[in-house]
Amino acid sequence: MKATSSFFASRWVEAPGHVREVEGLPAGFRAAGVAAGIKPSGDRDVALLACDSPEATSAARFTRSGTQAAPVLLCRERCDLAALRAVAVSSGNANAATGAAGLRDAARMQELAAELTGLEPAQVAVGSTGVIGVPLPMERVEAGLRAAGAGLAAGGGEDFADAIRTTDAFPKRATLEVKLPSGPVRLAAQAKGAGMLSPAFATLLCFVQTDAALGPDTADLLLGVTAARSFERVTVDGQTSPNDTVLLIASGESGVRVEPETEDELRLGEALDALLRQLALLMVADGEGARRVGRVVVSGGHQLHVEAAARTVANSPLVKTALHGGDPNWGRIVSAVGLALPGTAPLPVDVTIEGVTVCSGGAAVPHDAAALAEAVQRDEVEYVVGLPGEGAETEVFFSDLGHEYVRINAEYTT
Amino acid sequence: MKATSSFFASRWVEAPGHVREVEGLPAGFRAAGVAAGIKPSGDRDVALLACDSPEATSAARFTRSGTQAAPVLLCRERCDLAALRAVAVSSGNANAATGAAGLRDAARMQELAAELTGLEPAQVAVGSTGVIGVPLPMERVEAGLRAAGAGLAAGGGEDFADAIRTTDAFPKRATLEVKLPSGPVRLAAQAKGAGMLSPAFATLLCFVQTDAALGPDTADLLLGVTAARSFERVTVDGQTSPNDTVLLIASGESGVRVEPETEDELRLGEALDALLRQLALLMVADGEGARRVGRVVVSGGHQLHVEAAARTVANSPLVKTALHGGDPNWGRIVSAVGLALPGTAPLPVDVTIEGVTVCSGGAAVPHDAAALAEAVQRDEVEYVVGLPGEGAETEVFFSDLGHEYVRINAEYTT
Repeated sequence: MKATSSFFASRWVEAPGHVREVEGLPAGFRAAGVAAGIKPSGDRDVALLACDSPEATSAARFTRSGTQAAPVLLCRERCDLAALRAVAVSSGNANAATGAAGLRDAARMQELAAELTGLEPAQVAVGSTGVIGVPLPMERVEAGLRAAGAGLAAGGGEDFADAIRTTDAFPKRATLEVKLPSGPVRLAAQAKGAGMLSPAFATLLCFVQTDAALGPDTADLLLGVTAARSFERVTVDGQTSPNDTVLLIASGESGVRVEPETEDELRLGEALDALLRQLALLMVADGEGARRVGRVVVSGGHQLHVEAAARTVANSPLVKTALHGGDPNWGRIVSAVGLALPGTAPLPVDVTIEGVTVCSGGAAVPHDAAALAEAVQRDEVEYVVGLPGEGAETEVFFSDLGHEYVRINAEYTT
Repeated sequence: MKATSSFFASRWVEAPGHVREVEGLPAGFRAAGVAAGIKPSGDRDVALLACDSPEATSAARFTRSGTQAAPVLLCRERCDLAALRAVAVSSGNANAATGAAGLRDAARMQELAAELTGLEPAQVAVGSTGVIGVPLPMERVEAGLRAAGAGLAAGGGEDFADAIRTTDAFPKRATLEVKLPSGPVRLAAQAKGAGMLSPAFATLLCFVQTDAALGPDTADLLLGVTAARSFERVTVDGQTSPNDTVLLIASGESGVRVEPETEDELRLGEALDALLRQLALLMVADGEGARRVGRVVVSGGHQLHVEAAARTVANSPLVKTALHGGDPNWGRIVSAVGLALPGTAPLPVDVTIEGVTVCSGGAAVPHDAAALAEAVQRDEVEYVVGLPGEGAETEVFFSDLGHEYVRINAEYTT
């Protein structure tokens, strides 16, 4: 933990100097989260968020899975994704692999939420997360949405963040005050995600609000760039879900307009980048049963090679169990790189773990085994892999693989 | 188990009617396995096999990893792979990521084994398996090879199979008598492999001997086709090793010549196919800590799509933990297929588990939940996935993911 912030806890995220943590949602937003009885636990499971500004703009990103859930299909087909003003969420049930009936249920959630917030259905996004292949209990969902609609409040961000959780061990949210040259704005996000984080597009729900005024192109640019540097760079178990959704809504209520290619845009982008990277790292740290977080940085001459090597290392169960056990087993890193790049043997790979070089040009090198053994016991462990050539570099953050992952995913029937 | 065979135990391998299990190596082969002190356990760790026939032919397949171990690089560069007559193996140390010194050690193993068997170095293959990045203890290896050379015997196949093991819970070997139209021949194989089994090319060592007389092209054809249908169709943890090696040596000592495109070739191929498929399934069943073996069969209109879907299902930690827990969580199958085929949504996937159809056209269908719950508790569980279109089909066998995998790979420093 850094002294100035309880949220920006990872050494891999630098909290920008023009940002400070505050409470509450940005101006123009109200939210609620209620218990509707979808989850057997009785925890909150229906969430609603609305933006009161008619000038709101938005941007969205969705899973690239071939088997997308009904709410994702609905958002892509029936929403004006640049002018969203509300989102309705169910947790405990993903409304995925539910066919035509699932699409009807997602549309009903959209219609009811629009009615409750006085919006058009196309202005309301829908998200769901939870068990796959089970029809939504619509009577409960509708009652939950009505209760949430009645409870919408500027102070409702915390309940909202709580209500979108599934296997998350802790809620993931923050609100920042961001000092832009043109004036202060607020930026908030609520996210969920612990298992089923993925390559290609990290599996999660994340809802971002700001009271800055953004043109829809600016909103899309900022969300696209920062999602690529955060949620797309993490993996828990290499799995993607049918439900991944990231939404940004800008109310403009601060009166501070962020124009393209300005210092305002740069500074807001830095704040959003830090916010989403830390949220992504919280998801990895909350990776089902995770004890440690790894970061693999791969450099070399080919972008596709460094990407393949980084993903393969981050998703290797052998690397992940070694990370879990605090085992400096760098041979597993070398093997994973070899798996990622078939036909390149003999490949002169360099591997450095927490500053200790263990392999150079494909061969073991003498190193301080005691220093290495101590380093891999830390909460965050960094692996630097060098491939031949220069000019390309990437990183992937990943969780370890331990007994808790097996317990959560094998021992309880879902 | 089938009444007629203790070896062909899986329902997914049909023992050909012209095959019966026997003991001992095929005519013309001698083998030995000794304890040389490479393994801290004191178990056998140096193995030698030699063919006494000057007319021997051979074929070989190796890992496609970019980070190949010294013995693999040596075999590819310095062996006559169509005329091998011996193989020297170390276990407990992979001689991988060992650079130029590792190549010198592998060459020394080859030279010494050639000297001990009266062969040219190019006729001797070398294999190693075990820990990566540690120099071979050559004094022990050399002493072990000398002891093995002195102990070579027609009855040495069992010790040989034992000496190539690492984390294998049980040895994997069989000898078959195969009735060919032109006369009986013998076919034997010794294999090792439990973790680090892979896509692309399954990680393992497997040594096959026959006393049939094969032209080198026939040997290569038979080994290539049957390896593709066995070791290339299994996965334990999606990992490949730098050391994968499969070798076939044919002594010709039976006097039965197997000519191309004959009934003899077909029958021998059937026997080799069954032998290697059962060995591959034994590796999956011995997958570190495995409780159950899964088979996923995917059909559809595109070979690349069915291959990607089958691999992704078989390597999904969520599918594998569900298999471990006996959890009929078919949503994880659907999600894995979606992950494998980005950009295809909405994809009308069909899923049938042990004959119970749970998902049709991408949507859940009513099914007998009790029958399904019982079926997924079996030792072997079959998943059939249908994608749109026809003409392409593939299968992958995979192990589950349970606490033993984590214990073996995380709790003990290797």
